[in-house]
Amino acid sequence: MSGLADWIAVDWGTSRLRAWPIDGAGHVIAHLSSDKGMGGLAPQAFEPALLDLVAPHLDPVRATPVIACGMVGARQGWAEAGYEAVPCAPPGLARATRAPATDPRLDVAILPGLRQESPADVMRGEETQIAGFLAATPGFDGTICLPGTHSKWVQVSAGEVVSFRSVMTGELFAAIAGHTVLRHSLGEPNDESAFLESVAEAMARPEALTARLFGLRAEALLHGLAADTAAARASGLLIGLELAGARGYWLGTRLALVGAPALTARYAAALAAQGAVPEIADGDAMVLAGLQAAWAQAGE
Amino acid sequence: MSGLADWIAVDWGTSRLRAWPIDGAGHVIAHLSSDKGMGGLAPQAFEPALLDLVAPHLDPVRATPVIACGMVGARQGWAEAGYEAVPCAPPGLARATRAPATDPRLDVAILPGLRQESPADVMRGEETQIAGFLAATPGFDGTICLPGTHSKWVQVSAGEVVSFRSVMTGELFAAIAGHTVLRHSLGEPNDESAFLESVAEAMARPEALTARLFGLRAEALLHGLAADTAAARASGLLIGLELAGARGYWLGTRLALVGAPALTARYAAALAAQGAVPEIADGDAMVLAGLQAAWAQAGE
Repeated sequence: MSGLADWIAVDWGTSRLRAWPIDGAGHVIAHLSSDKGMGGLAPQAFEPALLDLVAPHLDPVRATPVIACGMVGARQGWAEAGYEAVPCAPPGLARATRAPATDPRLDVAILPGLRQESPADVMRGEETQIAGFLAATPGFDGTICLPGTHSKWVQVSAGEVVSFRSVMTGELFAAIAGHTVLRHSLGEPNDESAFLESVAEAMARPEALTARLFGLRAEALLHGLAADTAAARASGLLIGLELAGARGYWLGTRLALVGAPALTARYAAALAAQGAVPEIADGDAMVLAGLQAAWAQAGE
Repeated sequence: MSGLADWIAVDWGTSRLRAWPIDGAGHVIAHLSSDKGMGGLAPQAFEPALLDLVAPHLDPVRATPVIACGMVGARQGWAEAGYEAVPCAPPGLARATRAPATDPRLDVAILPGLRQESPADVMRGEETQIAGFLAATPGFDGTICLPGTHSKWVQVSAGEVVSFRSVMTGELFAAIAGHTVLRHSLGEPNDESAFLESVAEAMARPEALTARLFGLRAEALLHGLAADTAAARASGLLIGLELAGARGYWLGTRLALVGAPALTARYAAALAAQGAVPEIADGDAMVLAGLQAAWAQAGE
């Protein structure tokens, strides 16, 4: 698809850049993505990486607004977009930081992240998914969980983020699977009942986590534990620990999961076993909705 | 120092090879070591690696006995030395596996490790430190903790290993410090009071571990948490979790720590804060004592 964009929505994370050129009627013209995530880019490489992706959709005679969120706004990103302190609504375009572009066809604004003083915490990118979810779910009060590399548990009330807590579940799983003796024993998680058993074990005895992790290696050596079951157990132990630690966020409250479908399904199964029934929304759709909400708000 | 060895004690771990040629009077002739750990060696590289280190001490006209322990006996090592099932005494030379050496000056025996069926667990190398500790501490009944990459908590009674549990504390710390976002925030652990505070936090709320770990990154970003304090906190959180999970092993029993002095001191401080007063022994001295006990036993 081609066509000139009215404006462009951009989600720029550590490992991936995604862009949606949007026309004057609010329709997405194209779904574009590249592997030029913020993690691998020097400051001067951001503008070319964006142009590579969106140039065909830029009006040659004016600056096209680009609204971006995510790690592109970190200190090591294109331009540091700071953090708004909670409690606050997900920040809109009025709080954005202009990124230095030399191409006159680009006018790039980066949305800030959120910060919490105590316990110290930060997010960058998830606030835009939250904005999208709140735009799509008027009147939502409760907890939004965004599982991932650094899962977020977010208490929302009256359109504001009240408090939140990040948990290193996804990144810890990757570090364990890639950089410990378990690298020999973990495949792709694929054993629902082993997963749920391990969730329950970790919730019942969270202090046994690091012994149970080594136990997966020993089970593989001594009893031939299958790699997909071992991975399901490791995932269940880490997610179970997360659910135990975040109990105050999800127990007895309205709860939504926002994220990649495979991951939200896994969290939903774990939560269902604890009697919690979350709503589920797609993370990609929500980040786009959040960027669209920022654009709509600016036009008001 | 040089001189021909009566026999040679060898501790061959994943990252390091150490050898002690010992004369007929039982004196250590030399303390030798190289970085040719089992982790980096193909099967045919073990013999040359050992010869590089000990050749000057080999009698040219006979085969010198070599007694080895550690990962050299793993499936990926020089020769698989198997595991003895607990409960049992630390296995002696009668249970060793002969390694295939082509040089007629070498007669290499590898001691087996220990296995536990349920919960599944294995050790390789620590059983020899335990043998050395028991030889040096007649009548010891209680728990031996060997902190490290995969810490071991070992229940000993009447000279036998009754049960044990491995905990991935050291390896998890390394994976977190090297392969997560915390790599930007962790230095060398050096803040005793922060360490002890984090031990207590993890013991009180083990389920908060993975949130507290991310909190160290957020504290560094928002409040300039120092890298040595952050590392002390991460270490305290992981050791605190280990102590909480191993409570049944150390509470109300005679307790010994066997390991590297810097590490046993850290565990002793954490345990002292919980009211436990462990005996302490040096891991290197104990592995040598264990190999000497195997040799002495063979001569009886």
